[in-house]
Amino acid sequence: MVKKLDTAPYKGVRDFYPEDMWLLKHLFATIRKEVERFGYVEYGASILEPAELYRAKSGEEIVSDQTYTFLDRGEREVTLRPEMTPTVARMVADQKRNLSFPLRWYSLPNLFRYENPQRGRLREHYQLNVDLFGVTDLSGDVEVIELAANILKAFGASEEDFVIQVNSRKLMEALFARFELNSNQIHTVSKILDKKAKISEEIFDASIKEVLGEKASEFISLFHSKEKLLDFVGAEEESVKNFINLIESLSSLNVNNVVFTPTLMRGFDYYTDIVFEIFDTSPENNRSLFGGGRYDNLLELFGNDNLPAVGFGMGDVTLIHFLEVHNLLPTYVPETQAILAPVGTISPLTLAERARDIRKEGIRLAVNQNAKKPADIIKGALKAKIPFIIFLGEDEIAKNTYTVKNLKTEETKTVNKEEVAQIINTK
Amino acid sequence: MVKKLDTAPYKGVRDFYPEDMWLLKHLFATIRKEVERFGYVEYGASILEPAELYRAKSGEEIVSDQTYTFLDRGEREVTLRPEMTPTVARMVADQKRNLSFPLRWYSLPNLFRYENPQRGRLREHYQLNVDLFGVTDLSGDVEVIELAANILKAFGASEEDFVIQVNSRKLMEALFARFELNSNQIHTVSKILDKKAKISEEIFDASIKEVLGEKASEFISLFHSKEKLLDFVGAEEESVKNFINLIESLSSLNVNNVVFTPTLMRGFDYYTDIVFEIFDTSPENNRSLFGGGRYDNLLELFGNDNLPAVGFGMGDVTLIHFLEVHNLLPTYVPETQAILAPVGTISPLTLAERARDIRKEGIRLAVNQNAKKPADIIKGALKAKIPFIIFLGEDEIAKNTYTVKNLKTEETKTVNKEEVAQIINTK
Repeated sequence: MVKKLDTAPYKGVRDFYPEDMWLLKHLFATIRKEVERFGYVEYGASILEPAELYRAKSGEEIVSDQTYTFLDRGEREVTLRPEMTPTVARMVADQKRNLSFPLRWYSLPNLFRYENPQRGRLREHYQLNVDLFGVTDLSGDVEVIELAANILKAFGASEEDFVIQVNSRKLMEALFARFELNSNQIHTVSKILDKKAKISEEIFDASIKEVLGEKASEFISLFHSKEKLLDFVGAEEESVKNFINLIESLSSLNVNNVVFTPTLMRGFDYYTDIVFEIFDTSPENNRSLFGGGRYDNLLELFGNDNLPAVGFGMGDVTLIHFLEVHNLLPTYVPETQAILAPVGTISPLTLAERARDIRKEGIRLAVNQNAKKPADIIKGALKAKIPFIIFLGEDEIAKNTYTVKNLKTEETKTVNKEEVAQIINTK
Repeated sequence: MVKKLDTAPYKGVRDFYPEDMWLLKHLFATIRKEVERFGYVEYGASILEPAELYRAKSGEEIVSDQTYTFLDRGEREVTLRPEMTPTVARMVADQKRNLSFPLRWYSLPNLFRYENPQRGRLREHYQLNVDLFGVTDLSGDVEVIELAANILKAFGASEEDFVIQVNSRKLMEALFARFELNSNQIHTVSKILDKKAKISEEIFDASIKEVLGEKASEFISLFHSKEKLLDFVGAEEESVKNFINLIESLSSLNVNNVVFTPTLMRGFDYYTDIVFEIFDTSPENNRSLFGGGRYDNLLELFGNDNLPAVGFGMGDVTLIHFLEVHNLLPTYVPETQAILAPVGTISPLTLAERARDIRKEGIRLAVNQNAKKPADIIKGALKAKIPFIIFLGEDEIAKNTYTVKNLKTEETKTVNKEEVAQIINTK
């Protein structure tokens, strides 16, 4: 060999060894079960998308700096999808006439971002995407927030483990209107509010003052009391009524950890009203798990009529950290239930025939064709965490029996074929 | 809007609308069940790999002409994986000491090839990859071929629907040695044999003559009788014994559609002994479904000791065509079992609360919050192929009942909550 190849994966992406893959599949299965309970069906798409799909909304800078974008040999610019929303919008726009609304779709795509890897931010991760299209009123927002909370509960989390921060773009717009802010001021103030949790009170106050001048102190005081803020905007305002209705509806549906968070802005431009994020309450992992909201203008890009839409995304990396911190990660159990191994000289064909017989009893069975010493077989099974070994020697062949060893209890029993399945399936 | 975006996917890749996704998941579930019965566990990896991983075996030309390869901003060359074998070799080489052999691994990756899309050849497809590491003797080859056949049988195929072509590199090497071919001649003859099915007998004969001269006619005659070929190489030859043993063992395991095909060469350089391909027997879809064999030198690239390995790959696109042609495609049934819809003015919250109650009974339920006329609700359900509608009007609210419509039988029944689940789950 000329050169020894490196065995590391590409920077910022993960190899999924069987235990990692098993965990990912466990996450996906739990998520699928819960979203399907709510009537959502799964769709998928390629990770390759035309770059213009992202340029339109995110702008040139984000596409060229933060995504994997390259020219194919047909001179087409291709991007490895950094998010799923443009894809789902594209697919719905394409088939809008053939689809039935309200439309409930979900997917579990892998997404790519070109950034320096750090905890919770890899170059490739998986993300649950849930979208509800065609529901104009608040019941859509209520449904997706209820669903998001239920997903975490399906993993065994309780309401103390996470908090659902909600805000309303329309409510904030009404507030900004009362202060007669122009669009530049709105933009700046939104950015300051978005950063509030990360900056000191002094800096926050000073930054607001810079934009609002003499109106600043009244504005700032509203962010010290949510009741005052709602009062100030006014109980007769549609956005306030809606917002209170949202929180009350969720409470009726047993979702009680909802907190009005007027500083929640969310980065993307496409949100039009309610926005929400779910945060881990653990101080060790104080990060956003879900983010979503309402975005009614998404299909405009494709020349389609507007279509009301609410949805959210949840990444696998942050979910795994959440489950770790709250001790909710499941313990790995391999799909393989037992290993069949020879004692002495048993022909490979006899071994294969017996394996076939045991599999017919419903056992997921590997064969250790090359096994020499029982001690080695046991060592191998323990390494792979396979709970049973079935030994087959001349004696077993003669009597048509199997010697089953339970590696946990260390119990060994010689039984017939039907009992093998019984022992293994009822352990 | 400045410009209307196109709704088509990138050229040569597929959008998976819910029915397509459902089919893909059905394929994956059937495959997973069968390979796990044989003790294989699933692994995964990123689609991004360092380009050098493919250069080493496939050569510069294939990497730059047939793959998606680009420079990242760290000047690293990245390739979207065109096949899974280099990745699995990399992962096994990295963790060899911590793994337990024989090692049974499978994966269901998406793979990328830069080529002009045509039937059965897309730029992105999914492929089952099965690898058995650490079995030196023939029992490994027998196992993976038995498994490959069982996968098609798990989809409902019978042995008449497909044929398993097998050959042995070692047997062919013994044959070439008897003709005293040098390595250049072996290379050329292999290419001619590989093309035999696609060229006329005259061209085949002439091409062989060009390489073999006066020895050609004897050589050619061996390809008219497989028995003669085996006799010629010699019954005492290890490779012949092995090969006959393989076919007999498979027959004992109830795999009877195995055909010795001395022209089966398989493109890749890494095969070292037994190779096989499974072909659809239908004249409408006469193409390879599975391809695999033994490749014992794969880990050399990583400076590791050799590790015996056998395995195969099977693509989703050709599998779907196979199932289509043999009428084995399943009928789509959406995950969603029923739609809850209001009759008259029912508050959205009441609807959501009732939905929660029905879901607790184990029903996967969508809600049609915006529904106006029952006829529209029925139309929407039929479009989405959802089999039941649960109507909720003032009468039902007052009596705490539900009116369930079965869209297939058109039967309507007003029942209590427990009966809703009974009707829907036993349809």
